[in-house]
Amino acid sequence: MARKIALLQLNPTVGDLAGNVKRLETLLVLAADAGAVAAVATELAISGYPPRDLLLQDDFISACIEAAGTISTPIPLLVGSPVPRKPRQLPGNGALRIDYDGAVREVTRKQLLPTYEVFDEARYFSPDSRPGIVRGLGGLDLGVTICEDAWQHAGLVPSDYQTDPIEQLAAWTGQGVELVATVNLSSSPFHATKQSSRLTVARAAAQTLGHPFLLANQVGGNDDLLFDGHSLAALPGGEVVSAPGWVEGVLLVDLDDFSASVWITEESSSADAADFIAAGDEQIIESGVEGESAKAVDSVHDLLSAVTIGLRDYCHKSGLSKVVLGMSGGIDSAVAACLATRALGQDSVIGISMPSRHSSQHSKDDAEATAMALGIEYLELSIEELHEVAEKRLNTEVSEGPPMVGENIQARLRGLLVMGIANSRSAMAIATGNKSELAQGYCTLYGDMNGGYAPLGDLYKTQVYELARAINVDAESMGNPPPITESTITKPPSAELAPDQVDQDSLPPYATLDAILHALIEDMASPESIAAQGYDEDTVAWVEGKLNASEHKRWQMPPAPRVSERAFGQGWRQPLAAKR
Amino acid sequence: MARKIALLQLNPTVGDLAGNVKRLETLLVLAADAGAVAAVATELAISGYPPRDLLLQDDFISACIEAAGTISTPIPLLVGSPVPRKPRQLPGNGALRIDYDGAVREVTRKQLLPTYEVFDEARYFSPDSRPGIVRGLGGLDLGVTICEDAWQHAGLVPSDYQTDPIEQLAAWTGQGVELVATVNLSSSPFHATKQSSRLTVARAAAQTLGHPFLLANQVGGNDDLLFDGHSLAALPGGEVVSAPGWVEGVLLVDLDDFSASVWITEESSSADAADFIAAGDEQIIESGVEGESAKAVDSVHDLLSAVTIGLRDYCHKSGLSKVVLGMSGGIDSAVAACLATRALGQDSVIGISMPSRHSSQHSKDDAEATAMALGIEYLELSIEELHEVAEKRLNTEVSEGPPMVGENIQARLRGLLVMGIANSRSAMAIATGNKSELAQGYCTLYGDMNGGYAPLGDLYKTQVYELARAINVDAESMGNPPPITESTITKPPSAELAPDQVDQDSLPPYATLDAILHALIEDMASPESIAAQGYDEDTVAWVEGKLNASEHKRWQMPPAPRVSERAFGQGWRQPLAAKR
Repeated sequence: MARKIALLQLNPTVGDLAGNVKRLETLLVLAADAGAVAAVATELAISGYPPRDLLLQDDFISACIEAAGTISTPIPLLVGSPVPRKPRQLPGNGALRIDYDGAVREVTRKQLLPTYEVFDEARYFSPDSRPGIVRGLGGLDLGVTICEDAWQHAGLVPSDYQTDPIEQLAAWTGQGVELVATVNLSSSPFHATKQSSRLTVARAAAQTLGHPFLLANQVGGNDDLLFDGHSLAALPGGEVVSAPGWVEGVLLVDLDDFSASVWITEESSSADAADFIAAGDEQIIESGVEGESAKAVDSVHDLLSAVTIGLRDYCHKSGLSKVVLGMSGGIDSAVAACLATRALGQDSVIGISMPSRHSSQHSKDDAEATAMALGIEYLELSIEELHEVAEKRLNTEVSEGPPMVGENIQARLRGLLVMGIANSRSAMAIATGNKSELAQGYCTLYGDMNGGYAPLGDLYKTQVYELARAINVDAESMGNPPPITESTITKPPSAELAPDQVDQDSLPPYATLDAILHALIEDMASPESIAAQGYDEDTVAWVEGKLNASEHKRWQMPPAPRVSERAFGQGWRQPLAAKR
Repeated sequence: MARKIALLQLNPTVGDLAGNVKRLETLLVLAADAGAVAAVATELAISGYPPRDLLLQDDFISACIEAAGTISTPIPLLVGSPVPRKPRQLPGNGALRIDYDGAVREVTRKQLLPTYEVFDEARYFSPDSRPGIVRGLGGLDLGVTICEDAWQHAGLVPSDYQTDPIEQLAAWTGQGVELVATVNLSSSPFHATKQSSRLTVARAAAQTLGHPFLLANQVGGNDDLLFDGHSLAALPGGEVVSAPGWVEGVLLVDLDDFSASVWITEESSSADAADFIAAGDEQIIESGVEGESAKAVDSVHDLLSAVTIGLRDYCHKSGLSKVVLGMSGGIDSAVAACLATRALGQDSVIGISMPSRHSSQHSKDDAEATAMALGIEYLELSIEELHEVAEKRLNTEVSEGPPMVGENIQARLRGLLVMGIANSRSAMAIATGNKSELAQGYCTLYGDMNGGYAPLGDLYKTQVYELARAINVDAESMGNPPPITESTITKPPSAELAPDQVDQDSLPPYATLDAILHALIEDMASPESIAAQGYDEDTVAWVEGKLNASEHKRWQMPPAPRVSERAFGQGWRQPLAAKR
């Protein structure tokens, strides 16, 4: 019998236990039909990742175990689930074995609990101390690891753990335990260069273990976390097969004929050859586009998939079918409208133009052109009369206060109108701001920051421009008109809250700003070291000052899909009211 | 020479290293003048607690060590500070010894790193594995523990650690090491029954160690965390001396004549006798009021101190000198105005009445009466004209959408006016909402939720009423008129967003609601078990449904002072977009 193991690349919904079981069963049938002898699902597949404070409820964990017991499977399965606490301990992040007879057995618990960046696992789980082994799963004896368990061995963790589960398994193997492969149940979040790290992890593990290493990864968005999928398997010699990103499916790994491994989805009528990556080949797989080969695409399209899937899953998993956004004629709202249409369909997006006396004709034209090209509902609601009355109401404040007072009034009136439409249509407002302006406080709290989700909130302005170009190229390649007008892309960015205002009156040019912000935020570089790279010292100091001062706004920002290692929120928690 | 140890109950500002050193030096002089031979400051006193992501910057940690080296002290000092990372590890949560000669020596690092509720220490620190001992500090040999290190021994941790540092120290003592006392550097946050837990911890440690156990605790607010102080010392027999809460100062513990221990502040000209608590005495110390004996006060006054100090420190440490709030005539805004005046003084508070067509005359009168009694600046800005224009602008939405559409418009127009005043006066808006309404989503995002801080955000509505009565009693006891009118307290609560609307049209009576919410949030009780306590099953299910559904609003709520174990935010992180 062929030794084929199915890696189930699952898109679970946190807390939807019955739904997750149903998705698993669909993939299990695909896998069995294709000849798999056993299947491996992702980390916490039963609960979805991240379950956060649901894990504090013992009855939630019991419900997960019960749900696992309802799985009807044609082949034996290893699946991730929270497992019950032992006395005076936290629960475990476990792997369950489900056999034909419906029996549910705990195989192992995760040993290494990441607690950095987006991870908080030491809050929720107690670690195991022994390596996981499962015997006779579809006739195979396998090593079992859970996500981070394999990362210490490759040294790709920010600080060292006390143990290395891959070395533990290798030591057992050395003592005569015969394992045909080691599997890894992962919920390994996306960021731009993550897949090349995963490749390194899998190759290092396979080499040390002397047998294949197979990693099943979660796909899709849950809350602000994104998972790209890209499940993969590596041989000790360095050969790798990999699943596509951003789509659910089964990577069927053939242990006897590795290059015959295939990728199967519910939609496709037949299996596709899985991506094969030769030993030593490094140039690929930093990217991947929805449902496509990881080799064929560039990182901009990867980002585009990431933020589109993030928005789609956020809405679908929340039961939201419609979104509303303000469309100013600027690049951010144009790109956000395109993303929303890609994510949800043109009938699910409402764009609102809310011109004021400061709005230029070309901005109104640009916004309308994008809405028309996308075929979305488009409303025009001038704020002019409201603006006049509000200025009268706050007469002294507007005339004697700083210009910000009058500017914020406009942004907040627009926020009010967007929310009015959202409330009346049972839609969710989306905020269109980007990471550059959020980082600098160049946005209005309770104004343009309004929204339940900020699809561009973890993308720098220069990345938003890249997405705009990619969106237009995509449209043209499909014979459609580019939805984002040339002038939207080429005109100087402006908030249009005062006459002839442009962003560069208040901010350094975005190329400079983004480079400095990237260094400060992602690289945690010191201002001195950034200046030493050739950036103007005063500009760096100014940008850092704004970054610190605007923390109070970010404390209240809507969730944004995480596409970087150091996004605001979970992975960027500066003290707020505190002097620095 | 008398063996007197000074516990420095410090109110540091996170990140203000020079300022924290200066505060320490002031307390050190007080301590030395009173005859202390050595001093013990609080956990992370140099950086302030919690430094959060500042700890990810190596140069911040170097700066802490440098700042420690600048401390000029007349007596030897043990002080908490982040200490540098070892290769491939995280930094330590350390205790430094500072001697007369200015030498800075690392004594120990915290072993038990709490990572639950408000704590995230496993994110930031590597643990030590050996107990801390300091020899010859002012001639004394002392055991040294840091906060959580002492809590495992009393069993007062949510799940067990692998080690017990108190037992470790006891074992060393058993092997002939002679320690005269063990000290504990703490930043132990406030919540309602915390001090009785601390008493249990100190007594258990002293009993096991067979010598005095001395705990120096941080005081004041940093971001959303509150620290009550209440530093204390316990003898093996169970006798305890305790410092007051909510005020900076020195608890001078006399090891040779325990009951002669005194409390010293910068303001008082002489030392006061410290609170003495007899062995076995349990009834006290659940509470404490600003600068007063822990025995004399009740828990309502403790809460009042907590939220007042929280707001005061949040503003002062952020460099904010003025706050603005909407005053509706309701109980929440009346109490918030009183708190703000207590925290910042009457010249630093601006109250704004923003009546609409739905506002009753008694509400306007009640709001004005409170403002006048407090002597704060009071503006009246009717929203009527704005309301009319906004309704016209969103005509279809208001007439055909749900009533919420029209109601939210009013709340958001008020939010816009409050922010306009805040922006023009360089003031911070405070949100006046309470935990009950936040928990139920009975509030308007981008409307009455606007603000940089929500002083009542972790208090249930019934607690807000208790504060109101306590505030009035306080005023009367000082011969002042009660600032909160009787009708504010007795009239049925109403949002006044529709004709004759009252909260109880939409919510269960607050006594019922708060009891159910407390059970769901703080006790994490199941709906079934709550119903079994005698609450109507449908009501419990309805409240739980609203609690889950309103998570998206709380994701964007302003920081609120934590007065409970399970506040929204850090200690309450439900998945957001995920089905439950």
